[in-house]
Amino acid sequence: MAEIRHALNVKREDDFATWYQEVISAADMAEDSGVRGCMVIKPWGYGIWERIQRLMDDRIKDTGHDNCYFPIFIPLANFEREAEHVEGFAKEMAVVTHHRLIAGEGGGLVPDPEAKLEEPLVVRPTSETIIGDAMARWVQSWRDLPLLTNQWANVVRWEMRTRMFLRTSEFLWQEGHTAHETAEDAKEHTLRMLEVYRACAEEDLAMPVIAGEKPENERFPGAVETWSIEAMMQDGKALQAGTSHYLGTNFAEASGIKYQDREGTEQHCHTTSWGVSTRLIGGVIMTHGDDDGLRVPPRIAPRQVVILPMLRGKDGDDALIDYCEELRAKIAAQFAMGEKIRVLLDTRPGKAAAKRWDYVRKGAPVIIEVGGRDMDNGVVSLLRRDKLWNAETGRVDYATPSRDEAAENMPALIEDIQKSMFNEAAERRDANITRGLTSMEAVSDFFASNGKYPGWVEVQWSKPSGAGLEAVEEQLKAHKLTMRNVPKGSEQADGTCIFTGEAAVERILVARAY
Amino acid sequence: MAEIRHALNVKREDDFATWYQEVISAADMAEDSGVRGCMVIKPWGYGIWERIQRLMDDRIKDTGHDNCYFPIFIPLANFEREAEHVEGFAKEMAVVTHHRLIAGEGGGLVPDPEAKLEEPLVVRPTSETIIGDAMARWVQSWRDLPLLTNQWANVVRWEMRTRMFLRTSEFLWQEGHTAHETAEDAKEHTLRMLEVYRACAEEDLAMPVIAGEKPENERFPGAVETWSIEAMMQDGKALQAGTSHYLGTNFAEASGIKYQDREGTEQHCHTTSWGVSTRLIGGVIMTHGDDDGLRVPPRIAPRQVVILPMLRGKDGDDALIDYCEELRAKIAAQFAMGEKIRVLLDTRPGKAAAKRWDYVRKGAPVIIEVGGRDMDNGVVSLLRRDKLWNAETGRVDYATPSRDEAAENMPALIEDIQKSMFNEAAERRDANITRGLTSMEAVSDFFASNGKYPGWVEVQWSKPSGAGLEAVEEQLKAHKLTMRNVPKGSEQADGTCIFTGEAAVERILVARAY
Repeated sequence: MAEIRHALNVKREDDFATWYQEVISAADMAEDSGVRGCMVIKPWGYGIWERIQRLMDDRIKDTGHDNCYFPIFIPLANFEREAEHVEGFAKEMAVVTHHRLIAGEGGGLVPDPEAKLEEPLVVRPTSETIIGDAMARWVQSWRDLPLLTNQWANVVRWEMRTRMFLRTSEFLWQEGHTAHETAEDAKEHTLRMLEVYRACAEEDLAMPVIAGEKPENERFPGAVETWSIEAMMQDGKALQAGTSHYLGTNFAEASGIKYQDREGTEQHCHTTSWGVSTRLIGGVIMTHGDDDGLRVPPRIAPRQVVILPMLRGKDGDDALIDYCEELRAKIAAQFAMGEKIRVLLDTRPGKAAAKRWDYVRKGAPVIIEVGGRDMDNGVVSLLRRDKLWNAETGRVDYATPSRDEAAENMPALIEDIQKSMFNEAAERRDANITRGLTSMEAVSDFFASNGKYPGWVEVQWSKPSGAGLEAVEEQLKAHKLTMRNVPKGSEQADGTCIFTGEAAVERILVARAY
Repeated sequence: MAEIRHALNVKREDDFATWYQEVISAADMAEDSGVRGCMVIKPWGYGIWERIQRLMDDRIKDTGHDNCYFPIFIPLANFEREAEHVEGFAKEMAVVTHHRLIAGEGGGLVPDPEAKLEEPLVVRPTSETIIGDAMARWVQSWRDLPLLTNQWANVVRWEMRTRMFLRTSEFLWQEGHTAHETAEDAKEHTLRMLEVYRACAEEDLAMPVIAGEKPENERFPGAVETWSIEAMMQDGKALQAGTSHYLGTNFAEASGIKYQDREGTEQHCHTTSWGVSTRLIGGVIMTHGDDDGLRVPPRIAPRQVVILPMLRGKDGDDALIDYCEELRAKIAAQFAMGEKIRVLLDTRPGKAAAKRWDYVRKGAPVIIEVGGRDMDNGVVSLLRRDKLWNAETGRVDYATPSRDEAAENMPALIEDIQKSMFNEAAERRDANITRGLTSMEAVSDFFASNGKYPGWVEVQWSKPSGAGLEAVEEQLKAHKLTMRNVPKGSEQADGTCIFTGEAAVERILVARAY
């Protein structure tokens, strides 16, 4: 086994947080904007987001939702209506107080005191209350239900400590909002959208997740039930990658969303909301990235195949470009996983080796290099990014199929990469969930002694609320742990609660988390 | 000729402004949100925007641009750097001054005085200055140029008088920003993107436009040249539907966007910016709407074909739905104008006649009704929305092709509707541009005496600047007129300026405008 010289300066096993930042910069995905807590999403990062958007949007539309657009500004009064909701959000919102600037005394600009708003406006941190206003106008009768809406938008939560893609003051997301006749319908829809998130995470992002219900203390402010998908990052921490909330009639009562039921009686609707955000990109990085940069699953790769002719700035270049263009056209005419294959022939000036490493760091799933000798032999040199190295030689592991074979096998190769990336992550996830710990002491020992990246534990608990729940939180907090969710379909409890010693009622995942 | 009973209460010829609002509400496109100057875009309106976005985005990517995302908040200091730019925008911006709310004395919420920002942030009215910061980081050498970026985003300009889609405080748009080596490159790119806008307006929105350069007084704040596409609405007013700006080195100097040229000397980049917004939807309404509601050109229709089975809530319904489903599947399998046909089979409960009028008001291009008798005869009843009425009978003008014919001819029908809607609008536009008026008096007479919707005039002028230009503006303003643009490729001037009496240098369009 030869030693491999990786493309990044920092390895995952040495310093995961620094590695994460280096991937973002090495793959040219995003950068700090200079505006507090806001990032600039660069073409490769935004291209991944466009792919996620497209696939998720199709899934959301397939479940009967229409997209709408609601105002970015929310009047203060809306927040005052739902007590828990305001408690949860009021502490971290951007507040607009003026609508004009004028020249200040020092020559700079200042808010014009004459243009102070009578009622300040909040930049939406989430849109339950403003969409609730619209729903109250739109719903009259049971015939108007279910009302299934979604919007793609930017939102702002004033975060003190930010990290690119994972926690930024401004982020991009979709937020679905629905109204239903009955609690049963609304709860069913909450789980339907959770399943959409699971499917998109696992099938599109190749990111295995555990879908389950959050404990009471982790609920969305104002929700009756909060469900999540949780993904295990390569450092063993959990990432909450999407949430789906059953809101009961709390928001309907606050906003006056009422309908006449089939018997003519006026009722409050049961509502749901659910969202995923650019945070998913952070999940992709920490699920699939390696010591050479990002690896993008083919379904969400802006370019699935990149062809790099080894140009020499000489006469032979034209023939080489023609040879590559024929390959490009053959690949581009084919479908993989139901979509046209996205292939780029990169003829910009520059050395092929430098470009190869650019695309390795960006994580393009398939990189094809073609030199003059390859052309003469009718072959190409092909790298699959998910299996980059030959461990024996310590070199990148080229295959050299004929050009026609490379083109013909591309759909199968792309599908194999997608599947293989999911399986690799799922195996790691499964290997790193520990079950059977029966006391808080055992849990604490486990996290203290099980290496740098200990993973998750599943424990049994009695699901206390109030002061009992707070005591559980405190116990976990001492070890920087949190409860993640109660996995859907997990085995019934059969033991005692590791926190209270009472009879356990369910099994819950405990982990360090982002 | 029988009298026609139209679907709307207000006719275009009676009260265009009220008609416009009625179309928006009758087609269920958007509504007032209750938040000052902001609208809620409802599914049919947003669906049209999604189509415009998709088609425009493809065109923008085809010209080599990558999408990015930049922060919504812009520090005040950015605006202070470019004098004309701040002058143009400072008067109408939303200013964020606090990042937290607390309970006030009256029990409500107030901005927390402890959480006042040291430097207020502006909600972007446009992003030249913040993207300029990024460009200054990204560009070092001539090899980095041209730098071609675009973003889809919401922007806010505090408008005192708003009108849905045409002028709202928050609106959705794309803004392209590019940096180039030379003035020549940048000017060429400014016109390339103007041409993209013209093509999208005419080919996708079926909205004829005149592309040309705006006079100095109508330039974007900080621009050296501003070009526009201007569309003629059915009331003869002009709508500026898109603009493309050559910014010279003004913003590059303000933001420090510099590159080493091929000789190793440091130079400022020449930059451009260009944008179109949800205003385009207002243009679609006022170009294609009629006294029965909206008519959506097929390229941008969320649904191009709607099939309405005349259900009776009885046993026969299943057979009828099967008959319609076969039709739907045959249509959905075909392509029109390069895309899969978008067809909806609407089986919701409700009378077919009521649904027919819903889709007439929404402007679905083709509406197909199928009753039991149609099924028995193997035919369907088909309406094309752009030619709804039979003038002789005063009734809607059904065709009754066989079901197979209807399916087979659908691509041709859809293409014909697209073409026909463009031609109709182009003929009206051409008929309503008047040339040859040689004095301001003649212009004033023309607008006073030429009916309610007089259209545009093209006049010759000497293109004065400074006080001379202000005098021209004043003369026009007295008649509520403005200069629109100097059409690209218009004939050379050969007369005297109608404003100054000097020798004319070019021909310019004058009109009332939105």
